[in-house]
Amino acid sequence: MDIKVPTLLIDKEKCRKNIKKMFEKATKAKATLRPHFKTHHSAIVASWYRELGINQCTVSSVSMANYFAKHGWKDITIAFPYNPLESVEINALAGKIDLSILLESNESAIHARENLKNKVGYFIKIDVGTLRTGIDHKNEDLINNIISTLGKELDFRGFLAHAGHTYGAGTIENIQWIFDQAEKMLVPLRERFGGILSYGDTPSCSIIEDLSTYDELRPGNFVFYDWMQHEIGSCTVNEIAVCLASPVTAIHPERSEVVIYGGAVHLSKDSLSTKNGTCFGKVVELTANGWNTSLIGNVNRISQEHGIIKLSENFISDVKVGDIIGVIPVHSCLAADIQGHYLSTNGERIEKLSKT
Amino acid sequence: MDIKVPTLLIDKEKCRKNIKKMFEKATKAKATLRPHFKTHHSAIVASWYRELGINQCTVSSVSMANYFAKHGWKDITIAFPYNPLESVEINALAGKIDLSILLESNESAIHARENLKNKVGYFIKIDVGTLRTGIDHKNEDLINNIISTLGKELDFRGFLAHAGHTYGAGTIENIQWIFDQAEKMLVPLRERFGGILSYGDTPSCSIIEDLSTYDELRPGNFVFYDWMQHEIGSCTVNEIAVCLASPVTAIHPERSEVVIYGGAVHLSKDSLSTKNGTCFGKVVELTANGWNTSLIGNVNRISQEHGIIKLSENFISDVKVGDIIGVIPVHSCLAADIQGHYLSTNGERIEKLSKT
Repeated sequence: MDIKVPTLLIDKEKCRKNIKKMFEKATKAKATLRPHFKTHHSAIVASWYRELGINQCTVSSVSMANYFAKHGWKDITIAFPYNPLESVEINALAGKIDLSILLESNESAIHARENLKNKVGYFIKIDVGTLRTGIDHKNEDLINNIISTLGKELDFRGFLAHAGHTYGAGTIENIQWIFDQAEKMLVPLRERFGGILSYGDTPSCSIIEDLSTYDELRPGNFVFYDWMQHEIGSCTVNEIAVCLASPVTAIHPERSEVVIYGGAVHLSKDSLSTKNGTCFGKVVELTANGWNTSLIGNVNRISQEHGIIKLSENFISDVKVGDIIGVIPVHSCLAADIQGHYLSTNGERIEKLSKT
Repeated sequence: MDIKVPTLLIDKEKCRKNIKKMFEKATKAKATLRPHFKTHHSAIVASWYRELGINQCTVSSVSMANYFAKHGWKDITIAFPYNPLESVEINALAGKIDLSILLESNESAIHARENLKNKVGYFIKIDVGTLRTGIDHKNEDLINNIISTLGKELDFRGFLAHAGHTYGAGTIENIQWIFDQAEKMLVPLRERFGGILSYGDTPSCSIIEDLSTYDELRPGNFVFYDWMQHEIGSCTVNEIAVCLASPVTAIHPERSEVVIYGGAVHLSKDSLSTKNGTCFGKVVELTANGWNTSLIGNVNRISQEHGIIKLSENFISDVKVGDIIGVIPVHSCLAADIQGHYLSTNGERIEKLSKT
């Protein structure tokens, strides 16, 4: 591989395995897998889902929805609260594909009814404890209001929830507890109002054995996974499918540190607290067609373009300026978002949606 | 302004004032201002420096150097350790402009001598206590080695230092202490080996009164400033020249919170610890041609596309979904890096280098 600058490597076979495993789990649960594409923003990565017959996806912005629609995706949910400022763009896209949006207030429902003339589906967002967006499941008055505001103007699809608080849950038992609580909130809503239940987040979908409560599952991160997911218990090290190839540009044996070309503009500033301090990525050795899964160090400090890694004496004596080492990102969604493109471990350039 | 999605606003007049103030300070110190352009990556922003006759700049990557060279910058220092893997690109660019690189090991010096055939200048990077890159100032053997390795093959420019540890210094007294220490390390090197002393970092260049020790100053962030610089003491709130215009997409009065379309992919995950918890940005009200400088809240939590803001009762009762509010970034360099473009407060689109 002809790598000269920090480059996000993608192991296609690991991605395909991750997709297949999640697809089989969803199929066993009789749920539709509607993967979230905010993790990769790439029509090429998206095509690996289609190989299994997955034709529906989730995105988090209108521009992402337009990008995937242009690449043949005809059934898309924008899992972000309806942005009235983009109603023209949403309406235009709804004229071309089967589009669903998220609503959580009567004001937004009225705006959507007045401004979306093409057929649009909608989900009511329920907060299952993340305290980010969504309606309290007990607020049936508001749910009734939204449904009656929209009448037959928009197509009621059901209830959508994202248990983002699984990321900080700490233990698998806590993730199970969150899952059980969410079930208790959501199932009665389906019984009372109809529609489907759409549920998300990679930790729940990876860890919980039986997902059959839900009609639809929307995990995203699982295609790549990352070190945070490994710490949560969602994946093994071997299932992590992304790694930042990072040139070594300085070596400081006097403090057992190596400086890589690979910083916050390549990995993001997402970090984990460990007993050895803050970790911005796990260091591995690259191989001819990927990377070893033995961990040899942490990215301990990070600035805009630099990463600083503490290495054991064993390793540091072998490293030279101009070598390339691998860094498994703490959070692959953010590390992927800031790349212009990816490189597969067999040397193919993988294009993605770029910011303009 | 026709804003529909998170958009980084730039107040051109504030930028121009910031540039003028720093330029006058450098001129008074009889130092050349060689601003770091990693903060904005934009030929348009760069043109505002040129209005004052500033014709030299600093960048942190070869691609950035190529971009600015294409836009007429003929005197560029790449202030990042020489990356041997990019020697072909560096050599090609050195054939077109006056280019300087950074060296800190004899191995890199040998590689540069063997591979850079066009005239290239070099600085020796000195660590003044940041413990990121650079040689210990007492290591005169290594300095001698590098200079004699390169002989007349490359053009010795002097010593370069970046006191990045000012960012965490906590008080202005500590920044002064760091400055004084660096002076004691660097001045003897100039006396002994010749060349110029090039010094960087926005906190030092903003706060220290007398910069006349140095021949060249390389601050970058000062053109925009940000909340971190305000906390350090580098700028007033009114000098901060960037603000993320963020649509409100959900309101939760029951917990005094507003959810904006504006998350880690717009602001970065850089944060500050405050007595009220973590802060990912300071919230302000937008005006017809910019933003108010009274602060009305913090971005308290952040995920990929969402920011969550606690607002006082006063403000929350006035906010509606579809409103746009402003967020002053904690770290403008990272917030700027992840944009596709900027918007000036008078409505002009400002292009920048995009990642491909």
